[in-house]
Amino acid sequence: MSEGTLPKQLDVLVLLGSISDKAMAWQMAPVFEEFGVTAHFEVCSAHRDHQRLAQLIPLAEKRGAGVFIGVAGMAAHLPGVIAALTTRPVIGVPCEGKLDGLDALLSIAQMPPGIPVAAVATGGGRNAALLAVQILATADPALKRKLTLFRRKLARNNRVDSSKLRDEMNK
Amino acid sequence: MSEGTLPKQLDVLVLLGSISDKAMAWQMAPVFEEFGVTAHFEVCSAHRDHQRLAQLIPLAEKRGAGVFIGVAGMAAHLPGVIAALTTRPVIGVPCEGKLDGLDALLSIAQMPPGIPVAAVATGGGRNAALLAVQILATADPALKRKLTLFRRKLARNNRVDSSKLRDEMNK
Amino acid sequence: MSEGTLPKQLDVLVLLGSISDKAMAWQMAPVFEEFGVTAHFEVCSAHRDHQRLAQLIPLAEKRGAGVFIGVAGMAAHLPGVIAALTTRPVIGVPCEGKLDGLDALLSIAQMPPGIPVAAVATGGGRNAALLAVQILATADPALKRKLTLFRRKLARNNRVDSSKLRDEMNK
Amino acid sequence: MSEGTLPKQLDVLVLLGSISDKAMAWQMAPVFEEFGVTAHFEVCSAHRDHQRLAQLIPLAEKRGAGVFIGVAGMAAHLPGVIAALTTRPVIGVPCEGKLDGLDALLSIAQMPPGIPVAAVATGGGRNAALLAVQILATADPALKRKLTLFRRKLARNNRVDSSKLRDEMNK
Amino acid sequence: MSEGTLPKQLDVLVLLGSISDKAMAWQMAPVFEEFGVTAHFEVCSAHRDHQRLAQLIPLAEKRGAGVFIGVAGMAAHLPGVIAALTTRPVIGVPCEGKLDGLDALLSIAQMPPGIPVAAVATGGGRNAALLAVQILATADPALKRKLTLFRRKLARNNRVDSSKLRDEMNK
Amino acid sequence: MSEGTLPKQLDVLVLLGSISDKAMAWQMAPVFEEFGVTAHFEVCSAHRDHQRLAQLIPLAEKRGAGVFIGVAGMAAHLPGVIAALTTRPVIGVPCEGKLDGLDALLSIAQMPPGIPVAAVATGGGRNAALLAVQILATADPALKRKLTLFRRKLARNNRVDSSKLRDEMNK
Amino acid sequence: MSEGTLPKQLDVLVLLGSISDKAMAWQMAPVFEEFGVTAHFEVCSAHRDHQRLAQLIPLAEKRGAGVFIGVAGMAAHLPGVIAALTTRPVIGVPCEGKLDGLDALLSIAQMPPGIPVAAVATGGGRNAALLAVQILATADPALKRKLTLFRRKLARNNRVDSSKLRDEMNK
Amino acid sequence: MSEGTLPKQLDVLVLLGSISDKAMAWQMAPVFEEFGVTAHFEVCSAHRDHQRLAQLIPLAEKRGAGVFIGVAGMAAHLPGVIAALTTRPVIGVPCEGKLDGLDALLSIAQMPPGIPVAAVATGGGRNAALLAVQILATADPALKRKLTLFRRKLARNNRVDSSKLRDEMNK
Repeated sequence: MSEGTLPKQLDVLVLLGSISDKAMAWQMAPVFEEFGVTAHFEVCSAHRDHQRLAQLIPLAEKRGAGVFIGVAGMAAHLPGVIAALTTRPVIGVPCEGKLDGLDALLSIAQMPPGIPVAAVATGGGRNAALLAVQILATADPALKRKLTLFRRKLARNNRVDSSKLRDEMNK
Repeated sequence: MSEGTLPKQLDVLVLLGSISDKAMAWQMAPVFEEFGVTAHFEVCSAHRDHQRLAQLIPLAEKRGAGVFIGVAGMAAHLPGVIAALTTRPVIGVPCEGKLDGLDALLSIAQMPPGIPVAAVATGGGRNAALLAVQILATADPALKRKLTLFRRKLARNNRVDSSKLRDEMNK
Repeated sequence: MSEGTLPKQLDVLVLLGSISDKAMAWQMAPVFEEFGVTAHFEVCSAHRDHQRLAQLIPLAEKRGAGVFIGVAGMAAHLPGVIAALTTRPVIGVPCEGKLDGLDALLSIAQMPPGIPVAAVATGGGRNAALLAVQILATADPALKRKLTLFRRKLARNNRVDSSKLRDEMNK
Repeated sequence: MSEGTLPKQLDVLVLLGSISDKAMAWQMAPVFEEFGVTAHFEVCSAHRDHQRLAQLIPLAEKRGAGVFIGVAGMAAHLPGVIAALTTRPVIGVPCEGKLDGLDALLSIAQMPPGIPVAAVATGGGRNAALLAVQILATADPALKRKLTLFRRKLARNNRVDSSKLRDEMNK
Repeated sequence: MSEGTLPKQLDVLVLLGSISDKAMAWQMAPVFEEFGVTAHFEVCSAHRDHQRLAQLIPLAEKRGAGVFIGVAGMAAHLPGVIAALTTRPVIGVPCEGKLDGLDALLSIAQMPPGIPVAAVATGGGRNAALLAVQILATADPALKRKLTLFRRKLARNNRVDSSKLRDEMNK
Repeated sequence: MSEGTLPKQLDVLVLLGSISDKAMAWQMAPVFEEFGVTAHFEVCSAHRDHQRLAQLIPLAEKRGAGVFIGVAGMAAHLPGVIAALTTRPVIGVPCEGKLDGLDALLSIAQMPPGIPVAAVATGGGRNAALLAVQILATADPALKRKLTLFRRKLARNNRVDSSKLRDEMNK
Repeated sequence: MSEGTLPKQLDVLVLLGSISDKAMAWQMAPVFEEFGVTAHFEVCSAHRDHQRLAQLIPLAEKRGAGVFIGVAGMAAHLPGVIAALTTRPVIGVPCEGKLDGLDALLSIAQMPPGIPVAAVATGGGRNAALLAVQILATADPALKRKLTLFRRKLARNNRVDSSKLRDEMNK
Repeated sequence: MSEGTLPKQLDVLVLLGSISDKAMAWQMAPVFEEFGVTAHFEVCSAHRDHQRLAQLIPLAEKRGAGVFIGVAGMAAHLPGVIAALTTRPVIGVPCEGKLDGLDALLSIAQMPPGIPVAAVATGGGRNAALLAVQILATADPALKRKLTLFRRKLARNNRVDSSKLRDEMNK
């Protein structure tokens, strides 16, 4: 049933535990577009629709997903449960719904030995997307070159910000 | 395959994420024995043996399990994943391996809406067993009476401790 | 005196430490209604009206209460004190008034051995109600069936959210 | 029943939630002795022997207790429950059994409005005793004078420690 | 110089580390008025006006202050420094300016052995005032009677709140 | 390239990890102006423009910078990386973007042995500037005198605040 | 100079901030050996030998390093500084030297937008190595197959542990 | 009285709140010796011997102290109170007696605006001494040169550790 929802080919499958974490998806989308990476976004709670999750992961693998991203708040089990279902790298994004996201951060970062998850910062959707691109670049030299250019742009923007601050502060 | 490991009839299935949390099982066993409740103990990680977990839960239900207890440390997903697989009450025991168990406590207590888990204290195996008995007593008047007697014993022991302290401190 | 306030028959007694935690009650009410469970709501602080608390609990038991829910913030003693007064299962809901609710969570979850409380998440009124229903279902097969249907609805809603997200994100 | 256990006259009643917190009592005893204050020590859990607690507090008041001290760990409700039963000042000592005592500290310090508890440090039995003496001194000029002498001794000891350190470090 | 600012007679001296913590003073004032206790309020930082603090405390003692209250946020040293300057009971109120007040709570509650401070909850101005009244009542039977009446009023209000909730929730 | 951006002479170089932390710069500017200290402000992330950072620090040293201030939030590495590049004193200001700034505070304060950073409070831009002035005063007697006058002003303002509070509270 | 220290070819460069974190290296070594991945271990503090770090990273890239692992405690800047120097995926392992490793976890996980680090659990050396293998497997089908076998072994071991527990607990 | 205890000339005065924090002094002593800086060590609690503290600080200033270091645990007020008594830079070292030192860290780092303290890590005596040397170097070119050499030694030692690790790990 969920077969129809996944595209024929995808690089990254992003799963949100709840549609209320949508802001993280919107942080990621422009990153994937900038790098020409095909990402697909679904809502699939590890708890409320466990069965569908168990179908989506192998299907996404078959269709090319090289990295999975799980986005969740509170007791954020989604990335860990995805990681139990695949050997592809899984990135976890802790959302800030409760306790400023400390609960989600610990639920994602503190994975026990054997099944790793790559945790990024609370509310760190943008970095999750960038990390996914870096991982995909392992097998894709064109992405590596784009990452180098992207870093230069980051540095350039930092300098533009600095000149704005100088104008403002240093009279 | 796991069918053979479960007894024909059981009241409580206790799952440990790792054999290193065995101390919690040993806290529970005498409680279940005192109340005449049939508990069965297995090691089954939500991450390392997800497949077997998905088989054990419905099988345990069929064999009478009215309550499940998940024991785990760190990013303690086990109780939440059990809760996703059953509508029976699920109790979670956070273990104290890292960060004094704060990671496990938040991973268990902070379950998002829809799939509840009943969290007890870090290292609280004994209370998990007692809570399981209290839940089973909902459908078992004999257990209710035993619980009342148990409470009297607790109070009595408290008074015995007090007289020991008095002997030691006062005068 | 408080006899008049309790209904003749009830399944769940929900006590709020303060009327300022009313939002939790409003999270619970639709759950109880959906499952046809009779819940009654009172404000009764463990500290400010200890005497009435000691009367309400046994009275509610006599009138059928099979589960108690205590809702409190800060040093949230209410669920623990209820648990001291009954052997029925007691669920504690930590409110988020101070320190994002960490104080209330620890005050509820970290109950010492002997008298268990089932802690749910900070601000987790909805899950408290669901857990109460799951416990009552132990003695009520009709509730068990409703819980199974409810889980299906949760999964369905999750999929509806997913299709909304796909429409929005995946062009 | 508990009448026989309390002395005919006492200044401070110290209640321990569990005999495992005995070290706090041993921190207090020499302070009370130094100031000539009559303290009496009992074990009485707020949860496991709620009934006896409700008897001990008014009895202790009748026999002269001007201050109560509650010593407890984990979800440390004892001081708050004592405070609900008396209008005398109540001091709470958080024990360090779990989470380094953060759970007990928050359970004691974060009392909601209306029923105050005076929290001291985690493991702060000695300061609890001193605070009790300071409160009793409100109505007892002789105690006030002793407190002034005690402070001089503290300063003197601090200087003796300093000269020891100088001997050790400087030269 | 500061002599002119203190009234000829006072029961409680309340010191605020900063005028930005004024809300705490406004929590206290009606309590003191209800009990007929003479409180005086000053701003006096332990760090920014250490010298004046060292003058205010003994002067306030001479004019009758039986209890001191220090109100401060962040690294809240004020109550501890007051406590170093007097043997009267000192109550500390942690303000919630940074880190939800956890910094202030620990800076106040965790006083090292020898010089106690009575910590109340973060933002707990009202309880600080009540605790001060309870301490003064040690030497004032009229205050004790008022406290008993006050507790009855608290219980009554709790019941009024409960009937409001019943009206709202229980149809 | 960055040579042109630094002034010919400066006392303090303030680096912001991100322009979003600008409020800290605006807390500092009036302090530096009051003391006649030449401060220069730049945005330079330790991560996004590491190369420029490595150029700015030695250049600023050559132009007279005696103190460096690094302002950063989240995993706030900037002050530590500055400290790795200079032996001048480095002050770190933790920003409050996530987790109320606890992440930034620990990332700055908990520097491992060998390379110290002087941490101030979360959001503590003003104190960072004052600490920089105090350090510069080590070699500048005129600054020392100004600091003494500044402290008097602080005390005076504290007293003015106190008289305002007295007017407001004490009728 | 450091050229001689790196092998001619390597898959993963593991850098320890301090030799005191050696236990993490010993967790990783058998994982790399099991998967036939060439890992090289160096001590290189981001603070104490910043210059060498800036040489090691590009050299390691040239020699084939596809993943970097930074191991550090306290204000654990090492992984973030490595990430600033490469676009290859960087994994961070927080060590537990102080505050149970919470400082290191936040210093690693809470990386600001633009430069991601993949955080694993406190003390999670084993998972860091596994995550590195999973990332390398993106470009290496043989590793993918080994990972599938490895997962089966994990599950098998989990079942062996379970049968041990059953023998021990279930009579 | 304390005049006799201070040496005729000193560069740094180190004050310990309690002799139990002696380990921090022993971390500092070799640093001061290595740099030829005259440090003097005393025990002087901000709370237990407030009066002597108020004498020691100005006396130390007169005898040349350019930097003060306050070492304290729990509610660590000592550095803040020193800072209130001098305009010289004050460094605070949080000790790890309770709550792993989090209480002391927040009590020291979170100083309110106006009176800065330079916080170093929990248990960070060595870095406190190094920071003091860096501050003194502001007015002492010879110290600056020694600091540069010291940094080279740190880097060298780091490389020696690395070669040890290589020998051990990389076979």
